[in-house]
Amino acid sequence: MRLHVEARLDYDFPQDVESLLHLEVAHEAGQTIVAESLTFDPPIAHARLDDPATGERRVVFRHQGSLKMTYVAMVDLTPRDTALAGAPQHAVADLPIEVLPFLRGSRFVESDRFEQIARHEFGQLTGGDRVEAILTWLRTHVAYRSGCSNATTTAIDSYVNRRGVCRDYAHIAAALCRASDIPARLVSAYALGLEPPDFHAVIEAYVGGRWRLADPTGLASPANLVRIGEGRDAADIAFLTIFGEAFMTAQSVTVRDISQAPAEPAAA
Amino acid sequence: MRLHVEARLDYDFPQDVESLLHLEVAHEAGQTIVAESLTFDPPIAHARLDDPATGERRVVFRHQGSLKMTYVAMVDLTPRDTALAGAPQHAVADLPIEVLPFLRGSRFVESDRFEQIARHEFGQLTGGDRVEAILTWLRTHVAYRSGCSNATTTAIDSYVNRRGVCRDYAHIAAALCRASDIPARLVSAYALGLEPPDFHAVIEAYVGGRWRLADPTGLASPANLVRIGEGRDAADIAFLTIFGEAFMTAQSVTVRDISQAPAEPAAA
Amino acid sequence: MRLHVEARLDYDFPQDVESLLHLEVAHEAGQTIVAESLTFDPPIAHARLDDPATGERRVVFRHQGSLKMTYVAMVDLTPRDTALAGAPQHAVADLPIEVLPFLRGSRFVESDRFEQIARHEFGQLTGGDRVEAILTWLRTHVAYRSGCSNATTTAIDSYVNRRGVCRDYAHIAAALCRASDIPARLVSAYALGLEPPDFHAVIEAYVGGRWRLADPTGLASPANLVRIGEGRDAADIAFLTIFGEAFMTAQSVTVRDISQAPAEPAAA
Amino acid sequence: MRLHVEARLDYDFPQDVESLLHLEVAHEAGQTIVAESLTFDPPIAHARLDDPATGERRVVFRHQGSLKMTYVAMVDLTPRDTALAGAPQHAVADLPIEVLPFLRGSRFVESDRFEQIARHEFGQLTGGDRVEAILTWLRTHVAYRSGCSNATTTAIDSYVNRRGVCRDYAHIAAALCRASDIPARLVSAYALGLEPPDFHAVIEAYVGGRWRLADPTGLASPANLVRIGEGRDAADIAFLTIFGEAFMTAQSVTVRDISQAPAEPAAA
Repeated sequence: MRLHVEARLDYDFPQDVESLLHLEVAHEAGQTIVAESLTFDPPIAHARLDDPATGERRVVFRHQGSLKMTYVAMVDLTPRDTALAGAPQHAVADLPIEVLPFLRGSRFVESDRFEQIARHEFGQLTGGDRVEAILTWLRTHVAYRSGCSNATTTAIDSYVNRRGVCRDYAHIAAALCRASDIPARLVSAYALGLEPPDFHAVIEAYVGGRWRLADPTGLASPANLVRIGEGRDAADIAFLTIFGEAFMTAQSVTVRDISQAPAEPAAA
Repeated sequence: MRLHVEARLDYDFPQDVESLLHLEVAHEAGQTIVAESLTFDPPIAHARLDDPATGERRVVFRHQGSLKMTYVAMVDLTPRDTALAGAPQHAVADLPIEVLPFLRGSRFVESDRFEQIARHEFGQLTGGDRVEAILTWLRTHVAYRSGCSNATTTAIDSYVNRRGVCRDYAHIAAALCRASDIPARLVSAYALGLEPPDFHAVIEAYVGGRWRLADPTGLASPANLVRIGEGRDAADIAFLTIFGEAFMTAQSVTVRDISQAPAEPAAA
Repeated sequence: MRLHVEARLDYDFPQDVESLLHLEVAHEAGQTIVAESLTFDPPIAHARLDDPATGERRVVFRHQGSLKMTYVAMVDLTPRDTALAGAPQHAVADLPIEVLPFLRGSRFVESDRFEQIARHEFGQLTGGDRVEAILTWLRTHVAYRSGCSNATTTAIDSYVNRRGVCRDYAHIAAALCRASDIPARLVSAYALGLEPPDFHAVIEAYVGGRWRLADPTGLASPANLVRIGEGRDAADIAFLTIFGEAFMTAQSVTVRDISQAPAEPAAA
Repeated sequence: MRLHVEARLDYDFPQDVESLLHLEVAHEAGQTIVAESLTFDPPIAHARLDDPATGERRVVFRHQGSLKMTYVAMVDLTPRDTALAGAPQHAVADLPIEVLPFLRGSRFVESDRFEQIARHEFGQLTGGDRVEAILTWLRTHVAYRSGCSNATTTAIDSYVNRRGVCRDYAHIAAALCRASDIPARLVSAYALGLEPPDFHAVIEAYVGGRWRLADPTGLASPANLVRIGEGRDAADIAFLTIFGEAFMTAQSVTVRDISQAPAEPAAA
C-alpha cells in the first residue's frame, strides 16, 4: 500500500526558543519512504538528531516569530502482523535488555499502581490474550471524547475519568500491560482513516518474541500505521516539544491511500 | 581509594515469582572491581541481564520461600570530577541523542510542571551554576526525614511536603534541572560515610560536555560514590524489583574505606 | 443492648501545641450514655467545643510532654433501622438544605471525578438499591489491607489501589454515592465485634427521607454502632487533630456487649 | 455605594436534569438588596433552597433544552472593614464551633499538606499579619493567567503551576491559612472593577474575632464586594451546579457603580 501523509503546523513563537520536531516517518522495516520533504516558512536553519538505533528522526531549530512547518511523505507500507491471540508472555529473564525499561512506570503511565486492578480484571490470561482483553476492556469502559484531558493527564486520571483521546487510551493500555509484566510502549503514527485526522498514538506490546502494534481506541487499523516514533509514553513521542512557549495557530494532518493513483506522466 | 561494599538482603517470597536484582557495582570508568561475590542462600539459578552499553549489571531469578542475598565487592575508586560551577549549559541541538530522554518527565519526576517554579526561583542562572543553585535551594528548603514518603511519592509530592529521603531530594533536583532544559538523571550508588548506611540515590546533570554527579541531600561526597545504575528516576534504579509480592525481613548496607588496610598476609 | 466502650491514647507532644479530641459518644437519638469518663494523665485543663446541632462533642487542650487520654462509656443502644433496599432517591429540590453539602466533593472524596464510573457501574439503579450495589461492588473489588494507605490517601487513590482500611472503603463509597447524586457522609463510631478493634469509619447515605448507616467494609453491623461524629470525610471526623506535631506511643479501643452482665452488687 | 449587578447565563441542557443556581446576592449585613429579579427564558418552575443561617440563596430547577437565566440586582453596599494588620490569631479553643470546619482540608484545598511550606515561608507571623504575608506571597509568586487550570485543579496543582485565576489564588491562600491554623473560607461575589468582568472568588480569614475578606488576586477591592455565597472551596460556591451535563453557550457578568446615577423621575 502506498500512503501520502502530510502534516502542516503553524506556530507562533513569541520568544527566541529551541524546539524539537518529531513528525518525520521513521526508518523502519515495513515502511519505505519513497519521497518526502520537510519545509519551514520562513526557511530556518535546523539540526538533525536522528537515532540510528531506532530509526527515529528529529529536527531541532531555534526560532522567534511565526513559522509554518510542512512535512509531506510518500510511504510504501507492508501491512504488519499485529496478531495478539495466543502470543505467549515472556519471563522477565527471557526479555531482551532493551525491552526492560518498558516494564516500568513512566511520566503518564503509573503502572506500579495498577497491579491489583490488572490482577482482578484480567485474572489468569497471559501474553497476547491478556493484551486483547485489556483492549476489549478499554473499548467497553472508556468513551472517546476530546476536551476531557490535557497534556498532564495520566493513566490514573484517564482510568477514573473513563473518557479521553488516543493518548489517554494508550496510557491506560500501557499501564495495564506493564502492571501485568508485559512490556508496553507508545508509538506515534500517521493513521489511514482516522476521523478526525490527526497525529495518532497507539501502543506496542512485547509478546511472542516481538513488539506487536495495537490501537486501543479501535479507530485505526494497526496494520496500516506509518510509524513516527516510540517511547515510554506521550512525553517521549511528542511531535513538537517547545523549550519555552509557543502558540499553535493552525494544524492539520492528512493521510491518503494513493496505491491506486495513476503514475505521474513521464512528461507533463 | 579502595572501598569495601556489602549489601545483605533477606526477603520472603510467599509465591513463586521473578525478581530483578540491581545492586552490583557497574562496570564504568573510574571504578575498578578488584573482587566481588553475589551469593544466594539457598543457592538458586539466576540469569544475567547485563547492559554492555551502560555497564549496568542485573540478575533475574525466580524463587518462592525465604532468600538471603549477599553482595560483597572491593572497588578501587578514582575520585570523580564533580565540579559544577561555570560548566556551560548546552543548546538542545548540541546534546548527544542518548541524553535527550533525560530532558523529559518520568514516573516520579513531573518536570513539565516545574517550569514556572524553575524560572521564578533560578532566574538567569544557566548550566552548572543553575544546578548548584538548585542544590542549595534543596538543602535550605527540604528537611531530611524518613517515614514521610513512600514508593509512589513523586517530585511534586516532595516539593510540597518539604521532607523526604535521598530518593525524594533526587527527584526534586531532577525535576528542576529538566524544567530548566538541563538533562538530569538518577544514579544509585554505594556511598562512603552515609549515615545511616543504605543504598543511596543521587543525581547527574549533563552540563559542560559531560554528566556530573551531585548529592542533593549533601550527606555524601559525590566524588567517592560507587555507581550501581542510572535512569530517569527511582523506577529505573530500584535495587530489587519484585514481579509479584515479597516481604523484607532484614536489610543492611555497609561501605568502608580499606585504602589503609594492611595487605593480606601471603600465607595465613 | 448495653455496650461498654473504652479508648486509650498515649501520645507524646514534643512542643506545647493545641489538640482537638473527638472520641466521645455523641448525644443522639438511639444511643443513651449511661455513664462515661474522660481522663487525662497528667490532669490538664481543657475546653469543650460541643455542637448542640449535631450532638457531637469535642475537647480542646494544650499540652507539652507525654499524655495518656482515657475515655470510657457505657451506652444503651437501640438498634438502628439501616434498611437500604427500596429506599427512594430524592430529587435535589426535595433535600433538606443541611444535606446539600454532602452532595459535593471533599478533601478525600473527589466525587466530581467519579461520575462516569458511577454511571457505568450502577446504571439505572437509584436510591437505596444503588447504595447497596455500591457496597456490593466494594466488597468484591477492594481488599481490606492495612499499611497500603495513609492519612493523605483519597478515594481516587483507593479506587485504583483496590486495597485499604475502613476509612478508604468509606471514601470510595461516599464518592460513588455523591457521584450518583445521593448525599453521603462519613461517620466515626465504636463498633462491636470489629477485628482488630479500632475506631471505625462507616458511611451514611441520605435516601428514603433520612440518613441510613452502612459499613462499606462489611466488618461491623451498622445497626449496633455507637456514633462519635459525622462529616464530609476523614478530615472532619478525626478522633485526634494535633495543631503541630505529636507521636503516638500506644493506642487501643475496646467495645464489649455488657447487656447480660450481672448488675454491680449494691455493696461491694 | 449603590451597585448594579447583572449575570446572564445561556445554557443548553441535552437531557432533562436538575441544576442548582447560586448567583443571587446573599442576605447579609452590609449589603441591602434594593431591587432584584431572576428570570428564566423560557419560564420554568423552580424551587428555592435558601439558607436562613447564612443568608445564601439557591434555586433548583429541572430542565431540558436551551435556557437563558438572567439575574439583575441593585444593591446598597456599606464598605466592609477588611483590615488584617495586627488582627490577632485565635487559639483553637477560642474559636466559635461553626468556624472549626474551615481549619480542615477540603476538595480543592489540601491544607494538611501545606504545613511545612507555611512554617518555612511565614515563620513567626501570626493572625492578620500572617494572612497579609500569604497574600503578598501570592501576588509575587503566582501569575494571573486563564486557561492554565480547570474545574478539578487543586491548591497543590496551582501552587506548583504558579499560574491560575481567582479560584486558584483563593485555594492556595486558603490552604496556607488553614495550614497556619487560621480558619479560611472561599466567598463568591460580584466585584466592581474586575477586568475582565466575571463571577469572582475571594477568601475570608477568621482573625481578630471575625471573618475578614481579602482578594488574593489583588484585582478587586474586598471592601466593595457583593457577596453571593461562602464555603470550604470552589465546590461549595459554584454559581451553577448541573446534576448531569449541560453546555454553556454564552455567559456574562457586569457590575456597575450607580451611586451617582440620577434618581428615577417620580413620574415618567
